[in-house]
Amino acid sequence: MENLYIIKIGGNVIDNSENLHYFLKDFSSLQGPRILIHGGGKMATQLSHTMGINPNMVDGRRITDAETLRVVTMVYAGLINKNIVAQLQAAGSNAIGLSGADANLIKASKRPVKDIDYGLVGDLDDSSVNIATMEALLNEGLTPVFSAITHDGTGQLLNTNADTIASAIAQAMAKRYSVRLVYCFEKKGVLQDVNDDESVIREISATQFPTLQAEGVIAGGMLPKLQNAFGAIENGVTEVYIGRSDELPLLSEGSFGTRLFAK
Amino acid sequence: MENLYIIKIGGNVIDNSENLHYFLKDFSSLQGPRILIHGGGKMATQLSHTMGINPNMVDGRRITDAETLRVVTMVYAGLINKNIVAQLQAAGSNAIGLSGADANLIKASKRPVKDIDYGLVGDLDDSSVNIATMEALLNEGLTPVFSAITHDGTGQLLNTNADTIASAIAQAMAKRYSVRLVYCFEKKGVLQDVNDDESVIREISATQFPTLQAEGVIAGGMLPKLQNAFGAIENGVTEVYIGRSDELPLLSEGSFGTRLFAK
Repeated sequence: MENLYIIKIGGNVIDNSENLHYFLKDFSSLQGPRILIHGGGKMATQLSHTMGINPNMVDGRRITDAETLRVVTMVYAGLINKNIVAQLQAAGSNAIGLSGADANLIKASKRPVKDIDYGLVGDLDDSSVNIATMEALLNEGLTPVFSAITHDGTGQLLNTNADTIASAIAQAMAKRYSVRLVYCFEKKGVLQDVNDDESVIREISATQFPTLQAEGVIAGGMLPKLQNAFGAIENGVTEVYIGRSDELPLLSEGSFGTRLFAK
Repeated sequence: MENLYIIKIGGNVIDNSENLHYFLKDFSSLQGPRILIHGGGKMATQLSHTMGINPNMVDGRRITDAETLRVVTMVYAGLINKNIVAQLQAAGSNAIGLSGADANLIKASKRPVKDIDYGLVGDLDDSSVNIATMEALLNEGLTPVFSAITHDGTGQLLNTNADTIASAIAQAMAKRYSVRLVYCFEKKGVLQDVNDDESVIREISATQFPTLQAEGVIAGGMLPKLQNAFGAIENGVTEVYIGRSDELPLLSEGSFGTRLFAK
């Protein structure tokens, strides 16, 4: 099967125009088909603040009310998405900026209300991603660039976690491609010692993962990240990489960040 | 050649959610391939106001400075575009929301500074529209929905007149399709008597146009609209229609608004 890179960037790349610029150049230098998913960073919070909208918090959780959805639709799907696309075009990638509503590429369902009503937030399942249309866009030589906005098919846009979108696209596209899923975050990879930024663990297999967990090496926020990553691998994704955006050129030689694989 | 509808809506449709809802249902009921272009309406002005940004006016002309471009990119390409797409998806149209930067579909050039520097405004020429990619999207069964944002190919987004985008797409696509270009505005069509909203002139040919102009029937803001329309017809567009959005169902029987044609 053909290789497909699915790369997710978050606030640490988006909020710094220089970081973003260099990342997009490196992203454009990758060979073969690829998909980019971007989060929102601080811009949505800043715009809300400027507009006098206070974040709606319930039990410490951020709620996507109608006003917040308007803001994230403007910032994620408008401002950030179109600026990334224009920069990728300049760098030679034929990027096409998309939300999940566009071409019905990602259909979500509003998160059911249990203890907390998260508001207009979308959850994905294994039929959410429109594989055929995604493949048609890739075959057209296009590079899809997704903002973290989806829809429910009845006209409602939904705010959706960008990590979740990346993982859902990766698992769906694994049916047609050999998928490398790449999460860019603020560290160079999974660290052996959280206080030593250079102590990157180069590889973790699904069989090693429980041991590292038991030893307490992988803990805190890293734990759900890796659980999700190994979940994606179980569902057909070839490899997951976790590392820092400015090291992306190392990806093609397989030495970017931490590589997670089945065994 | 296959028929292609290219339909432009402006503020009078977009600013009223009920008008927009019914228009999008009617638009979805049209048969065959079609492209929608939307303006921005009052929302960008409202957001600027909320954000404390004053419109930058020079000699009574609105200037697109960097801050204004940020606002229109958020509102046109984000909020309005994605809401239209989600509603069209709900109504059964496989819409894909786009700016000119996406898939390099519309490449503009920054308007040269003569008497006035309009700022980050894009002008189009007859090589601006990427016909091959547009056709590929249509062949995929997709309905492109364009916001009035383009790019210059070097990473700069540009604010671009939606009427101009509609006309440029129509002229470019006329090389492959029999194009019906439709402008929705606040009147039922070109009026014989500006004070009588029912006095719609049903048809105007390119040969009749100079006579109506000499008689003073067509004057004021209608004059440049019709000059542009007949310009598009000269460049291969089959017909141009001008009328009110709520009469769109009449389009398929050819009795929508005023029909402009070659002879």
